[in-house]
Amino acid sequence: MKTVQDYIRTIPDFPHAGIMFRDVTTLFADPRGFRMAIDQLLHPYAGQPIDRVVGLEARGFILGGAIAHQLSVGFVPIRKKGKLPARTIEQAYTLEYGEAVVEIHDDALQPGERVLMVDDLLATGGTAEAGIKLIERLGAQVVGCAFIIDLPELGGRAKLEGLGMDVHALCAYDGH
Amino acid sequence: MKTVQDYIRTIPDFPHAGIMFRDVTTLFADPRGFRMAIDQLLHPYAGQPIDRVVGLEARGFILGGAIAHQLSVGFVPIRKKGKLPARTIEQAYTLEYGEAVVEIHDDALQPGERVLMVDDLLATGGTAEAGIKLIERLGAQVVGCAFIIDLPELGGRAKLEGLGMDVHALCAYDGH
Repeated sequence: MKTVQDYIRTIPDFPHAGIMFRDVTTLFADPRGFRMAIDQLLHPYAGQPIDRVVGLEARGFILGGAIAHQLSVGFVPIRKKGKLPARTIEQAYTLEYGEAVVEIHDDALQPGERVLMVDDLLATGGTAEAGIKLIERLGAQVVGCAFIIDLPELGGRAKLEGLGMDVHALCAYDGH
Repeated sequence: MKTVQDYIRTIPDFPHAGIMFRDVTTLFADPRGFRMAIDQLLHPYAGQPIDRVVGLEARGFILGGAIAHQLSVGFVPIRKKGKLPARTIEQAYTLEYGEAVVEIHDDALQPGERVLMVDDLLATGGTAEAGIKLIERLGAQVVGCAFIIDLPELGGRAKLEGLGMDVHALCAYDGH
């Protein structure tokens, strides 16, 4: 039986030379692959109360929508700056070159709510850390951070675990 | 009992003056609202074979992920130009000011596959028409186009029905 990793395609030199891009679109496009991915993302949280699923733009929306529907809970997006129409709070984080900003609606989560945060890839953990900060600034609690892919050499898992997070990933790749 | 429309928030003057922005994030964030939206999007297609769900970036990813998971089929993204890592075909369409380009991986659909295309909003239908063209250029067949919101005065429904499409929307608003 194929594993989730078997459905992931590697594209050399995207978005620029030297990057081995792990392409999850082939996983998502396959009925068995997508089903396995969503089910396995949820396994560690079986029996845990979860109030909201937060997904990080944009591939985290695909996963987060499916997971929220599976759990019959609401879905909340964290988006790049300027995309959300109502009042937001924002969080900056560092990229390889420069800085980016993500936002969440300031009424999207209530204090005490238990949140599962999902994205496709954990690399340096910069976006994920910004997402956790946004969720916590609204008074909600991150009960888990679930990813398809972990690139442990880039330090994201260590960073999130250092924040006390429970990190769950379906597979890992060496190098970048 | 509340309807899907009851969960949608209106933000005046976003993204610019004079636009009444219909904000579906309040629908998605509510467990009952999100569940109702996904279930109602699927009702017309019960009993119809569907091979793939295609979602339009970015809010269509949230809906498309949930619907593909519900149907146990694969999900395929149509993205803005430059985001997909492998070989793509692209389609330009006209905006109010200028032009935009969307893409699909050229191996994401196989000839003869039956596709359900989903997005949150049907306005002028420009993006949706470009999506349909991409799906059909890969030899697949669009069995339905499902949206949360229709703005019929902007002509999108008429445009898609003129292409022979089956258009399904959960609610409609007058004006823009």
